[in-house]
Amino acid sequence: YTPYPGSYSAADDSMWSYFTAVAGQDGEVDAEELQRCLTQSGISGTYSPFSLETCRIMIAMLDRDYTGKMGFKEFKDLWAALSAWKQNFMTIDQDRSGSVEHHELSQAFATMGYRLNPQTVNAIVKRYSKNGRIFFDDYVACCVKLRALTDFFRRRDHLQQGCVNFTYDDFLQGTMTI
Amino acid sequence: YTPYPGSYSAADDSMWSYFTAVAGQDGEVDAEELQRCLTQSGISGTYSPFSLETCRIMIAMLDRDYTGKMGFKEFKDLWAALSAWKQNFMTIDQDRSGSVEHHELSQAFATMGYRLNPQTVNAIVKRYSKNGRIFFDDYVACCVKLRALTDFFRRRDHLQQGCVNFTYDDFLQGTMTI
Ligand SMILES: [Ca+2]
Ligand SMILES: [Ca+2]
Ligand SMILES: [Ca+2]
Repeated sequence: YTPYPGSYSAADDSMWSYFTAVAGQDGEVDAEELQRCLTQSGISGTYSPFSLETCRIMIAMLDRDYTGKMGFKEFKDLWAALSAWKQNFMTIDQDRSGSVEHHELSQAFATMGYRLNPQTVNAIVKRYSKNGRIFFDDYVACCVKLRALTDFFRRRDHLQQGCVNFTYDDFLQGTMTI
Repeated sequence: YTPYPGSYSAADDSMWSYFTAVAGQDGEVDAEELQRCLTQSGISGTYSPFSLETCRIMIAMLDRDYTGKMGFKEFKDLWAALSAWKQNFMTIDQDRSGSVEHHELSQAFATMGYRLNPQTVNAIVKRYSKNGRIFFDDYVACCVKLRALTDFFRRRDHLQQGCVNFTYDDFLQGTMTI
């Protein structure tokens, strides 16, 4: 028992120091602060900046109070999710090239249970790859976005027919914000 | 008449030098090269890096040969399009705050001919603003994406009813790549 508010385990404690350093004065982490911290962490395995688009998508995914920023709890969840994605990425990258190529992504989608046309996979690879290689940050953006769009589609596919009737506003609300 | 290949007017000539400097060895401009050049140009009116997401969206919009990169012709088109967006942004920013706020965006959409629910506008503002302000690069991303998604929707809305039936793959091909 400790009388102090905000006391944590040792691991939480070091995470908390890290969080406060990243969050700055307002005590919340926005997309740009997250980008800086992930770039410095080296998690993407490259020297280039971690994708800001991916940061935005991840925050949108975990942002339960809809502020566009993350508190400590959300930050911890994000860190756990990213570690899981990193594990997943290394499994998918079977030839250990440091990136996911077309055939690896195609196989990954099948393993995750997606059934996509070859044209759909081609379009996705073209959009998220650089010279045919998909790096960690773009891989995460791609998978998170695919999942969010699929969830959005499935929630409207009441009869499970793989076919949905959207109004214009509903379509935009689901797609503009992912 | 000049015997040299690739001779241009003086304006084109200086644009060409600029293009080759930005494009580097491969003679084409990818999203990251574009981001560096737009950040340095100061077009967004802030010191922060120009949004990479916006660069990707703009390249996708102008990339007629589907390489994910831009040649000189596409680069010139992009430059012209960006100047037009900058003009448009300054018109929309009626209180000259340097950013577009909720009511300004709402009015801009109406002027452009979009008829959107207030909830749709709210969701869009939440996604593209920082502390309620939408800056130039995010404004461009938002408008280009809205136009692309609207065009995609409208092409399928054969009866002009504001309602479209999508298959899962068609839905993903339109939304994952914008
Ligand atoms: Ca902060
Ligand atoms: Ca690989
Ligand atoms: Ca304004």
